[in-house]
Amino acid sequence: MLNDLFWMVPACSALALIFAWYFFRNMMKHDEGTDIMKKIADHVRKGAMAYLKQQYKVVVIVFIVLSGIFAFLAYGLNIQNPFVPFAFITGGFFSGLAGFFGMKTATYASSRAAFAASKSLNDGLRVAFRSGAVMGLVVVGLALLDISIWFYILNAIYPPSVDANNLLIITTTTLTFGMGASTQALFARVGGGIYTKAADVGADLVGKVEAGIPEDDPRNPATIADNVGDNVGDVAGMGADLYESYCGSILSTAALGAAAFVSLGADLAFRAVIAPMVIAAVGIILSILGIFFVRTREGASQKQLLRSLGFGVNSSAVLIAIMSWVVLWFLFRGTVFNYNGVWASMIIGLLAGIGIGQSTEYFTSSSYRPTQRIANASQTGPATVIISGIGTGMISVAIPVIIVGTAIILAYGFSSSWNFTNFNMGLYGIAISAVGMLSTLGITLATDAYGPIADNAGGNAEMSHLGPEVRKRTDALDSLGNTTAATGKGFAIGSAALTALALLASFLEEARQGMIHFHPEHPFTQELIKGNMMDILRLFDVTMMNPKVLVGVFIGAMAAFLFCGLTMNAVGRAAKSMVEEVRRQFREIAGILEGKAEPDYARCVAISTKGAQREMLLPSLLAISIPIIIGVIFGIAGVMGLLLGSISSGFILAIFMANSGGAWDNAKKFIEEGNLGGKRSDPHKAAVVGDTVGDPFKDTSGPSLNILIKLMTMVSIVMVGVTLTMNLIMM
Amino acid sequence: MLNDLFWMVPACSALALIFAWYFFRNMMKHDEGTDIMKKIADHVRKGAMAYLKQQYKVVVIVFIVLSGIFAFLAYGLNIQNPFVPFAFITGGFFSGLAGFFGMKTATYASSRAAFAASKSLNDGLRVAFRSGAVMGLVVVGLALLDISIWFYILNAIYPPSVDANNLLIITTTTLTFGMGASTQALFARVGGGIYTKAADVGADLVGKVEAGIPEDDPRNPATIADNVGDNVGDVAGMGADLYESYCGSILSTAALGAAAFVSLGADLAFRAVIAPMVIAAVGIILSILGIFFVRTREGASQKQLLRSLGFGVNSSAVLIAIMSWVVLWFLFRGTVFNYNGVWASMIIGLLAGIGIGQSTEYFTSSSYRPTQRIANASQTGPATVIISGIGTGMISVAIPVIIVGTAIILAYGFSSSWNFTNFNMGLYGIAISAVGMLSTLGITLATDAYGPIADNAGGNAEMSHLGPEVRKRTDALDSLGNTTAATGKGFAIGSAALTALALLASFLEEARQGMIHFHPEHPFTQELIKGNMMDILRLFDVTMMNPKVLVGVFIGAMAAFLFCGLTMNAVGRAAKSMVEEVRRQFREIAGILEGKAEPDYARCVAISTKGAQREMLLPSLLAISIPIIIGVIFGIAGVMGLLLGSISSGFILAIFMANSGGAWDNAKKFIEEGNLGGKRSDPHKAAVVGDTVGDPFKDTSGPSLNILIKLMTMVSIVMVGVTLTMNLIMM
Repeated sequence: MLNDLFWMVPACSALALIFAWYFFRNMMKHDEGTDIMKKIADHVRKGAMAYLKQQYKVVVIVFIVLSGIFAFLAYGLNIQNPFVPFAFITGGFFSGLAGFFGMKTATYASSRAAFAASKSLNDGLRVAFRSGAVMGLVVVGLALLDISIWFYILNAIYPPSVDANNLLIITTTTLTFGMGASTQALFARVGGGIYTKAADVGADLVGKVEAGIPEDDPRNPATIADNVGDNVGDVAGMGADLYESYCGSILSTAALGAAAFVSLGADLAFRAVIAPMVIAAVGIILSILGIFFVRTREGASQKQLLRSLGFGVNSSAVLIAIMSWVVLWFLFRGTVFNYNGVWASMIIGLLAGIGIGQSTEYFTSSSYRPTQRIANASQTGPATVIISGIGTGMISVAIPVIIVGTAIILAYGFSSSWNFTNFNMGLYGIAISAVGMLSTLGITLATDAYGPIADNAGGNAEMSHLGPEVRKRTDALDSLGNTTAATGKGFAIGSAALTALALLASFLEEARQGMIHFHPEHPFTQELIKGNMMDILRLFDVTMMNPKVLVGVFIGAMAAFLFCGLTMNAVGRAAKSMVEEVRRQFREIAGILEGKAEPDYARCVAISTKGAQREMLLPSLLAISIPIIIGVIFGIAGVMGLLLGSISSGFILAIFMANSGGAWDNAKKFIEEGNLGGKRSDPHKAAVVGDTVGDPFKDTSGPSLNILIKLMTMVSIVMVGVTLTMNLIMM
Repeated sequence: MLNDLFWMVPACSALALIFAWYFFRNMMKHDEGTDIMKKIADHVRKGAMAYLKQQYKVVVIVFIVLSGIFAFLAYGLNIQNPFVPFAFITGGFFSGLAGFFGMKTATYASSRAAFAASKSLNDGLRVAFRSGAVMGLVVVGLALLDISIWFYILNAIYPPSVDANNLLIITTTTLTFGMGASTQALFARVGGGIYTKAADVGADLVGKVEAGIPEDDPRNPATIADNVGDNVGDVAGMGADLYESYCGSILSTAALGAAAFVSLGADLAFRAVIAPMVIAAVGIILSILGIFFVRTREGASQKQLLRSLGFGVNSSAVLIAIMSWVVLWFLFRGTVFNYNGVWASMIIGLLAGIGIGQSTEYFTSSSYRPTQRIANASQTGPATVIISGIGTGMISVAIPVIIVGTAIILAYGFSSSWNFTNFNMGLYGIAISAVGMLSTLGITLATDAYGPIADNAGGNAEMSHLGPEVRKRTDALDSLGNTTAATGKGFAIGSAALTALALLASFLEEARQGMIHFHPEHPFTQELIKGNMMDILRLFDVTMMNPKVLVGVFIGAMAAFLFCGLTMNAVGRAAKSMVEEVRRQFREIAGILEGKAEPDYARCVAISTKGAQREMLLPSLLAISIPIIIGVIFGIAGVMGLLLGSISSGFILAIFMANSGGAWDNAKKFIEEGNLGGKRSDPHKAAVVGDTVGDPFKDTSGPSLNILIKLMTMVSIVMVGVTLTMNLIMM
């Protein structure tokens, strides 16, 4: 059965990992610079690794406990799929591995990028971007590796050629490793996000505001922690996050493909299942191609570099748009599968991702009026900066929601041939539109990950006194990355919402499967076996007038706010300990501000590490437990409401927080460029307050929401057996 | 047919208005104080009336345009209920009248309350509280008057004794005057909210922070505008808001009662329709009784005053709990109507309102840890105050959502005898739980409205140099009111969410009625006539897998954020003009800060008025047009999603913003009481930033959301004919 194009999936996975290795070796050959540069890089690397070690310790315990529970549910009570404990662990393991490799690369790359930038902007770009590419390729490579392994194993155990229904078992099982990836990603994002912002806020508040020393000044005890934070938050956290999105979109499409076509025979259903995987595999080839397109002439201007970067990303996107049609045509020519419609849905996804990115760009770049207005508000003090930033952030959600709404309707419409009751095909279209967004993740993630590398290179240059021109170059690299990264972020958040919506349908399919496997004797089950989506909704009483659904929607929306509030306060608390520690060192270590005595960097690193570990548990465990509690009390209907509420509010809150934070950041930079009085003026001080508030908005709470909505969906899917059984017992 | 207890509704309406007049006359007999007090009161009164006049001018234009459109739809195209244009106008008229009377009373009362407070705390309380009672009684009196008039007219035209189905026509028609009330309320809340906060933020930023003069100092040019703002925002805005909630809860219960019982005959259905009205009428009697309970001995301590106030409110609540059972028993004894269950639902509503109030109290009072933590965060500057306030506000939504969720399930369960597919009875239970919350609005609104009166009295005392002990007393009165007002606010927001949810069912019923009246020939219509709720959902394709519903939910949640963002930015902009004007006066009018020259108060009043008028239109028109646009594009299914999304996100955002704002306010007051360095310390300055950000949170955007969710629901209900017709044309 595993014929056709499936071989491409493991092959391209291997290709991605080989190129990642090649780029890594290449980067390592570059000179690490002067002794002080090496020393600083070593400090940061050790701090980052110490953090990751500590974080993985906690995560391993959580994974042992959860997989123990899953094993008990599966083998002790027989109300869960027996593969879940293993799938859960592999998902978590590979996600963690992707973060680990990405961070390892980043911490080796920063000093090398700084040293390269001291020669030329172009050299700096090449080292930083190729190092970012390592991360991008590791993520997609490991994701397809995990998918391939499970697919081979499950195909051997449940051959679809024997019974087409086996495809439903295979796809619903592989989906559960998404929960492992999501859990790992949430810890990485929340822990890393708290770490990086506690350090950043702490360093800024005492260093910049109170002591009046510049950013990344080696006299600031929190400065190493701040640089470590960029790695653990922006690199390791982002790697785990996108690993999870990438897998989730592919696996949910596969599950919907199986559900939609299983009645038409194993062959067609199998093709529908592997289609997203093959498209992803082709995306890897095109990403690698795109990475090689990013090469610039010596002495290129900043504009030329930007064009080169854009050329790499855009050519991958255009090529995948063409190649995916070829893949779909090859797989489905001559069948009833509406491959033109599905292809159109995929293109819709790509365009929606670009659109969200553009809107982000408009609302957060100082080249446009919204951010300039926030900067202007700084003339009347910090309060009006905050009001204006929050107001603008809230307004900025309108366009992305309209884009995603349009994408939902169009993707559903094209794939279902505009028959709005053809649920499975319509939702397959929504799911594959998310695959479209993420298909060239290999290169888009490279443009995202190289930002923090450039940032760290800048930190290293500053601390090693390499001179302002190097810092200027690394800043240029960083801001260069921000422009392309906006698109990457648009893809990440857009695909999260679309994937999660598609997973709603997978959840109902899991519920149907659950009834068939665990409660075959129940009167509902016979109706469910032959039932279509409409019957499933009716039998599980999923209607909009069922109070359980209504309450679910409220709780889901509330969960997004609660989660945000907890992570915001966590940053506040962790930053407070950092502020106190920095103040203490300034007070107690004589000569520190004159640069005569070395600050105790390690202590600040330890404080951030401890704070992040302590604070990440509650919000993460809440995200896991809410769907279980709602499932037990309110059943399938309650969970459906819960997920709809959390996806919609979570998506919107995520955009609000990301855009407010981004706009405050750039409003501050706008003033620092010499507008409205420039650095050290009163408006600048007001803008710094905005930027500080924006830090946890854009780097802790906002990005974590992305994962929250998918994790809650995944937990609901994995725990469906428990939900069903508890509700049958209680009724 | 209009027998039984209905006579109580007009009778109690008259009673309320008579007592309002009595209390008003009583207040007017008090001495207005010294000449300077009279002059200041006159300034404020004229400013407030000028604003109201300007506001009503704009609103009248909007009403003329909208009722013209409604008339065209009804008489030109025959796709709308012919009573809508008139019902719309009366709803708006009475709502505006309630605000006008309330504000008139408040502006006469403030100097009298100040003068009374200069004698004793007790005297101050009596004048302020009885003046607040005028507002409370006017609101409930006018509401029941409007309901009575329409009910008599429609009963004469469509006698239920001839055809029980006439009750459906009567109740769905009266429901439409809710849209008039909502529209007026939204303008009042948004316009008033922008006015008051522009003035407040402007006065504080330049006066307190820059010039270092105390609050309400007559040297501050914005100080009169600030005091005017308390009247137009907190009094007139709140009056219109609660008029609307009160009508909405009664009318939606009536409509659900008709839908639930019409098949069992006109008599029982009629009783189900008038039950919420009679309970409201009894609530008026008990509110008046409660108002008279608030009487204190001369020389009573602050604690005794608080107890006296609490005794008045609580005894009304306890009595209505008992009396409503008597009403329900009297109306439904010996029928199939589950009056014990419905009574239980009502009690659930009362308890939920109290619970939400308690939670508000916990999260915003400086006696508890959340607000103290925000105050502590001020030690590390304004950024951490903001982070902590936003974090705490987001966390604070959890308990109210759990309370409302529990109330939904229990109210639905008790009324439907725990049969979750008995939609109409279950939703009747949800609707009547909102009636329970608001039944004693006469007195709860009195405790709410007397706060701004006491606040204004304090302003008057300050400006007339009455000495700090008077200011202290008015501050005590204000904070006294805050405690009881928390419960009132809990009732207002809780009832808004429950009413809006109940209106979802009314919307579907209107859609069914719409098909029967406007499209009798359509094949669906025959099925709809005999269909139950499940069939209605199926026929309109309202399922959670319909992409139109999904998109609707996203757009609905987005609308709440967009609306908040627009109002936040509006305050920011209006405050900016005020800041610039105050700075200009300080700069250009010589001797102003030495108290030698009088500032140009009128100019500041005019700036706030103009700013509010300009800024209130866009958000308000957006709220009206979004449901129409979604209805036209996505039909009934899309609107259902839209409403569910806006109600859930709107409710949660409203609580978040109200609680963050309240907590910042009290954190600042906590520091001003001498904690953490007290007034003029760095923590105090940081806390003032928090308070300023919180102003539009708690007084503009937050309370407007309350109305937004109901207005969007009302618009959907009124425009259902257009939605149906446009969708039939397009398909």
